[in-house]
Amino acid sequence: MTYETRTIRLPVPERILGANDEIAAATRQGLARRGIFAIDLIGAPGSGKTALLEATLRSLGDRRRPAVLVGDLATRRDGDRLARWCNRVVQISTGQGCHLEAGQVRDALAKLDLEGVDLLFVENVGNLICPVGFDLGQNAKVGLFSLTEGDDKAAKHPYLVAEADLILLNKIDLAPHLTFDRAGFEADVRLLNPTVPIIEVSATTGAGLDKWIAWLEAGSAEVSGTS
Amino acid sequence: MTYETRTIRLPVPERILGANDEIAAATRQGLARRGIFAIDLIGAPGSGKTALLEATLRSLGDRRRPAVLVGDLATRRDGDRLARWCNRVVQISTGQGCHLEAGQVRDALAKLDLEGVDLLFVENVGNLICPVGFDLGQNAKVGLFSLTEGDDKAAKHPYLVAEADLILLNKIDLAPHLTFDRAGFEADVRLLNPTVPIIEVSATTGAGLDKWIAWLEAGSAEVSGTS
Repeated sequence: MTYETRTIRLPVPERILGANDEIAAATRQGLARRGIFAIDLIGAPGSGKTALLEATLRSLGDRRRPAVLVGDLATRRDGDRLARWCNRVVQISTGQGCHLEAGQVRDALAKLDLEGVDLLFVENVGNLICPVGFDLGQNAKVGLFSLTEGDDKAAKHPYLVAEADLILLNKIDLAPHLTFDRAGFEADVRLLNPTVPIIEVSATTGAGLDKWIAWLEAGSAEVSGTS
Repeated sequence: MTYETRTIRLPVPERILGANDEIAAATRQGLARRGIFAIDLIGAPGSGKTALLEATLRSLGDRRRPAVLVGDLATRRDGDRLARWCNRVVQISTGQGCHLEAGQVRDALAKLDLEGVDLLFVENVGNLICPVGFDLGQNAKVGLFSLTEGDDKAAKHPYLVAEADLILLNKIDLAPHLTFDRAGFEADVRLLNPTVPIIEVSATTGAGLDKWIAWLEAGSAEVSGTS
């Protein structure tokens, strides 16, 4: 490999490698002050991120005051779906951007009245790779896989699995129609992340949602200091 | 936005914005000289890219002499699966790389004996976003969606759909167990790409494979000048 020295002109905010992390740290502090538990939900296109959040918001009802940020290249469809269940939703259009960055999350949060909010869901752009490297200021990263994607996806996406605070395995209602080696999937996860909880869910039937919501409640209690 | 001038040291091949396209153009010329029809297969993680190629290789049998390049962040699993059906397979490990680039394809091709080869399948990294922007030297980009991902994925990934020479809709065997608005999906595709063919397939049952193979044969005939 040969190298060349080049003088280039770059926008300052993106120039600094640490800029994203600095913004994320400030976001994290701001959310902590408000006692908001924030999760970054990362999954492939079609893994069921929006469907899971719809089911979660419906299930939470009035017990919680959530806010949702949702990232997509194009369309407002996810935001519109979620707005039926929550009146604090901001759709972030990333254009050709393959992941959310901390600045987008900060700017989207500025559009919301966060008074009384206690949960923040950030639905990242559908992508198992690029979102992993960007801290958004969340408390927890949740890696969402689905049965229909095949049982090899944990091994093939080691960076997400290694960094995840929770692995959700969605679409378990389709298990009878698929071949999916759950023990093999879990073994792959364990090689990368020995302690991460794995919760099986179905956003369609509601199976497992109680365990996922209990996990959210525990995280929320920890952040708000009531645990 | 403020700007700053910075002097940085960059590897030369990646420095030039056009480097990828130049390598891709050279690859395309080299493949054309050999009469090889090359496709770049782009789909989400779990959309069934490898399963489709397995079924395709099995179905082609001795009628064709294909070669396969397959990109993944980690593991040799896809390469191993495909090597059961084809003795010219190269697995490209991208590490944290979210897409294949022309240099990786060029280097992988150098590892293969291309004598007599007439079809090249490049299975890109599972990602609907990042691979779209990188020319690999292919003749055709094939966008693979699956029924289990939901009917909104064309609209949400406009760059892939707009650039695709063929849209494959996989996992149609699962249609009875899903809600998927095929007319809506097709309407979204048509808004972005009025003329692209859409072929429904099931890598599991083999449904629709004949149409996909006929499309491959037509492309191959065009490239080899026998059409």
